[in-house]
Amino acid sequence: MTLGIDPGTAIMGYGLVASDGRSLHAIDYGAVTTSSDLPPEERLRRLHERLCEIIAVHRPDAMAVEELFFSANARTAIAVGQARGVVLLAAAQAGIRVHEYTPLQVKDAVAGYGRAGKEQVQLMTATLLALRAVPRPDDAADALAVAICHVHSARLVGLVGP
Amino acid sequence: MTLGIDPGTAIMGYGLVASDGRSLHAIDYGAVTTSSDLPPEERLRRLHERLCEIIAVHRPDAMAVEELFFSANARTAIAVGQARGVVLLAAAQAGIRVHEYTPLQVKDAVAGYGRAGKEQVQLMTATLLALRAVPRPDDAADALAVAICHVHSARLVGLVGP
Repeated sequence: MTLGIDPGTAIMGYGLVASDGRSLHAIDYGAVTTSSDLPPEERLRRLHERLCEIIAVHRPDAMAVEELFFSANARTAIAVGQARGVVLLAAAQAGIRVHEYTPLQVKDAVAGYGRAGKEQVQLMTATLLALRAVPRPDDAADALAVAICHVHSARLVGLVGP
Repeated sequence: MTLGIDPGTAIMGYGLVASDGRSLHAIDYGAVTTSSDLPPEERLRRLHERLCEIIAVHRPDAMAVEELFFSANARTAIAVGQARGVVLLAAAQAGIRVHEYTPLQVKDAVAGYGRAGKEQVQLMTATLLALRAVPRPDDAADALAVAICHVHSARLVGLVGP
């Protein structure tokens, strides 16, 4: 089972994807939010705590996270980096390897097309996981997409079973 | 006692500064390094683990960290953000409040001049702490400087004793 994460301090999306060899299943997905009223270190503590719980409950074999390339401002990059730091930490503490994929790799794996739009990727995510609707919030859908990307890639290189 | 941190994945500087009301003392300082041979999540796990040990041994009342403003590339900002994330997490897990200061505030507090050069700040750090030489590596000196900045600021606003 692969745990996909879309890191962020205000909202962190997560999605657990398993493969039975023929099809993919969404085991669990959702988003963890923290209030902007809290100091940054407390927000990070809550994200980390909740993520450790998710890992303890589902015991995923791998974690998948998108590589970040920011054109946006440095302040945003730092904030996302901080959330990403506690996410990677939670994986290492549980002995889970982290696999990083570029946005292009995720779009290509899910929609078969690296330049696919956000909505197209979300629709294909729902289709591949046999969900009736596009997962909400967007952060959960993004987390499921990167998890699917890892399951596909891992199968290609023989990291996971059929 | 204040724990100053200069976050980084390859090298994280730390410095513990105490005040007896008249003068400042460097209780401990140094740097934690991690090998680039390790996966990022494992480097973060080791940084976090070491920092938790330092906090457990010295039980500081506060943590001080420089605010980051990057003109450099986003990749660097993300990497420093990740290290910063596990540093803030360690503080929150120990119930320690984190105080952030701009580079200008640190220079002003230590050297009395916001545009002071790096060497000038390091010399003043050594002088204020009555150290015989400038602390090495630079990361440890930077960590001591931000800790001094917090002790000064906290005294002004009555957060710490005389």
